[in-house]
Amino acid sequence: MGDHNQYWRARETRLLVDRSPHVRVFEEDLDLPSGAFIPGWLKVELPDFAIIFALLEDGQVPLVRQYRRALDAFTLELPAGGIETGEIPLITAQRELREETGVEAAEWFSMGSFTLDANRGCGVMHAFAARGAHQVAAPDHGDLGDLSLCLMPLEEVRQRWRKGQFPLAPTMLTIGLGLQVLSV
Amino acid sequence: MGDHNQYWRARETRLLVDRSPHVRVFEEDLDLPSGAFIPGWLKVELPDFAIIFALLEDGQVPLVRQYRRALDAFTLELPAGGIETGEIPLITAQRELREETGVEAAEWFSMGSFTLDANRGCGVMHAFAARGAHQVAAPDHGDLGDLSLCLMPLEEVRQRWRKGQFPLAPTMLTIGLGLQVLSV
Repeated sequence: MGDHNQYWRARETRLLVDRSPHVRVFEEDLDLPSGAFIPGWLKVELPDFAIIFALLEDGQVPLVRQYRRALDAFTLELPAGGIETGEIPLITAQRELREETGVEAAEWFSMGSFTLDANRGCGVMHAFAARGAHQVAAPDHGDLGDLSLCLMPLEEVRQRWRKGQFPLAPTMLTIGLGLQVLSV
Repeated sequence: MGDHNQYWRARETRLLVDRSPHVRVFEEDLDLPSGAFIPGWLKVELPDFAIIFALLEDGQVPLVRQYRRALDAFTLELPAGGIETGEIPLITAQRELREETGVEAAEWFSMGSFTLDANRGCGVMHAFAARGAHQVAAPDHGDLGDLSLCLMPLEEVRQRWRKGQFPLAPTMLTIGLGLQVLSV
């Protein structure tokens, strides 16, 4: 059929799950340009978030460790957090880095915005890198008190990244881009 | 509170949306080790999938272009596809590369498995790289006839990746790792 400029159109949209601002699931009945009809197509809406690869002046990278129910495991991740309504993603990134790790940084780089899931959406991640970073406060331990800071030497971060050893996709993506953007 | 070895436990689990094998949404009432209780915590289950960064012997990388309802846009992505029940992810990767792009490859590398969303889950992506690839058949145009093959020179892929110009997180992550693993 080749390319076309007509998008799919929703004949009807139904909200199946509404747990704003955390999760919303929509069901759409779609008309395609080809004349095909897709009933009950599902879209998952999750909050957009900012995620940060920061390099401290002493060559360490701040990570956080916490229990994640979705994986039923403790994970090591880059600091990240949800974007509040109307907030500029860079402001979210600076706030979350400060809250979760106690770190502030002099120079910030926006590395792009990426949808998590091609089929269902699942929110957009905004990836940032920062350098000239230093710890200015004690980290917050999170709403549930189980978040801990881990300062990892850059070379260990790189080696773990190369081996695919961080369990979450947003952390892996942001480390890969961050190493390039900061040329480290 | 620091670390602990007791995981959160589900007192009750309810299935809110069941569109197997595409989407399932669960609601859990959780008991935490601290004694805290979280009612109605949501988990989103999406199919696990394989995604492939392949390098053709002529230096091009096969990508696919298609309309994605979740973004309401045409995207340029690495070939990818859902893992069928009991299937080994490498077999999925080889099948999807062949189906979507008509390409077969001599050498395969597993680069890791990553959960898409830290809070909700949203499935696991299995990232592969392949080299010594060559086109052996015409690409399939997909279930809806709107998938098209795009062969992009490696240098253009690298430049677009550095600038964050692919819209989907799994494609961005897999390109970043693939460039490292294939040392290109």
